[in-house]
Amino acid sequence: MGRWEPGAAGRLQTAAVELFVDQGFAATTVPQIAARAGLTTRTFFRHYADKRDVLFAGEEELPEVVAQVFAHAAPDLGPLDVVVHGLQTVVAPRLQAHHAELRIRRDIVRSDAALLERDASKLASLGRAATAGFADRGLSPLHAGTAAALAVAIYDVALNLWLDGDGTPTFVDTIATARDAVDLIATHPPIGTPIASGH
Amino acid sequence: MGRWEPGAAGRLQTAAVELFVDQGFAATTVPQIAARAGLTTRTFFRHYADKRDVLFAGEEELPEVVAQVFAHAAPDLGPLDVVVHGLQTVVAPRLQAHHAELRIRRDIVRSDAALLERDASKLASLGRAATAGFADRGLSPLHAGTAAALAVAIYDVALNLWLDGDGTPTFVDTIATARDAVDLIATHPPIGTPIASGH
Repeated sequence: MGRWEPGAAGRLQTAAVELFVDQGFAATTVPQIAARAGLTTRTFFRHYADKRDVLFAGEEELPEVVAQVFAHAAPDLGPLDVVVHGLQTVVAPRLQAHHAELRIRRDIVRSDAALLERDASKLASLGRAATAGFADRGLSPLHAGTAAALAVAIYDVALNLWLDGDGTPTFVDTIATARDAVDLIATHPPIGTPIASGH
Repeated sequence: MGRWEPGAAGRLQTAAVELFVDQGFAATTVPQIAARAGLTTRTFFRHYADKRDVLFAGEEELPEVVAQVFAHAAPDLGPLDVVVHGLQTVVAPRLQAHHAELRIRRDIVRSDAALLERDASKLASLGRAATAGFADRGLSPLHAGTAAALAVAIYDVALNLWLDGDGTPTFVDTIATARDAVDLIATHPPIGTPIASGH
């Protein structure tokens, strides 16, 4: 997250998010972002392709994160145990301290169709990386694709549930909650039973 | 699908897909598409915002399709039964006859990052519509979001599995296969058991 980064990329990120919150994503220009960060537009474009890109900084690390998740997973873990364990041990430590900024970021993303599109694309990339990871563990194409889709579902449901709250319970706990919800829905209880109550 | 549509929109769609297959998506221009369809670029832009748009024609009907799925669902169906029933009765009849074109379309989409992004965005829109549908049926936000994520997973896994084949088994049968795969993965058998065999 930019707030704690001393370099130009972090300063630009902080300036961009502040402007997006103050005046909206659509109304904010790259020269405005650069000026607020005390930098030139030339410097901006050395770090980011466009203003949308600023909100997806770190995305290039995703394949490495997914690779780590699979590398850390014991061979005898079931597919969703790989996911839960990976999210809890590799992803949660990267996110836990950044609840407030991640929530602001999510609200900006939700305000603009082009950002929603880019966000959806990021989840799809995660899904493709996870499909490859499960295939490497010996799952058939059907099961690897299904496991990856459920992995993305758990991550997305957990992240949004966590961001909807105030940061407690922790992201680690929220992952377990999301996985339980997947179990519950997949085993299809009838509507009207306890499924309609709860969170 | 354009092939059977007599109007300008259908002719432009057929021409666009032929050009995308022949020379690639990136190398194809709107004037080329219009010329091949025997129409003007002005007519093209009356029907489509850009060349990418051609591959997502009909997308504006998605909210109506999702609404139909929920309207047709008996009140006592479990969440994934709503999904399976809806895909089998509302979606499958729209897709079943178009296996060949849908497969060509998918291969074009996979060839280009901007198309993949738009496709991911379409799935995310479906997920948001399904979340609203499940919330209307009384599910909590957590369970509605989870059910929607699993609904999208079943649709996406089923569609790709069906398109990977030659059209038999039917899309209806493939939906049941995808739902079984979701059940199997969600109930997490250890790796190395029958899950690694099969499809």
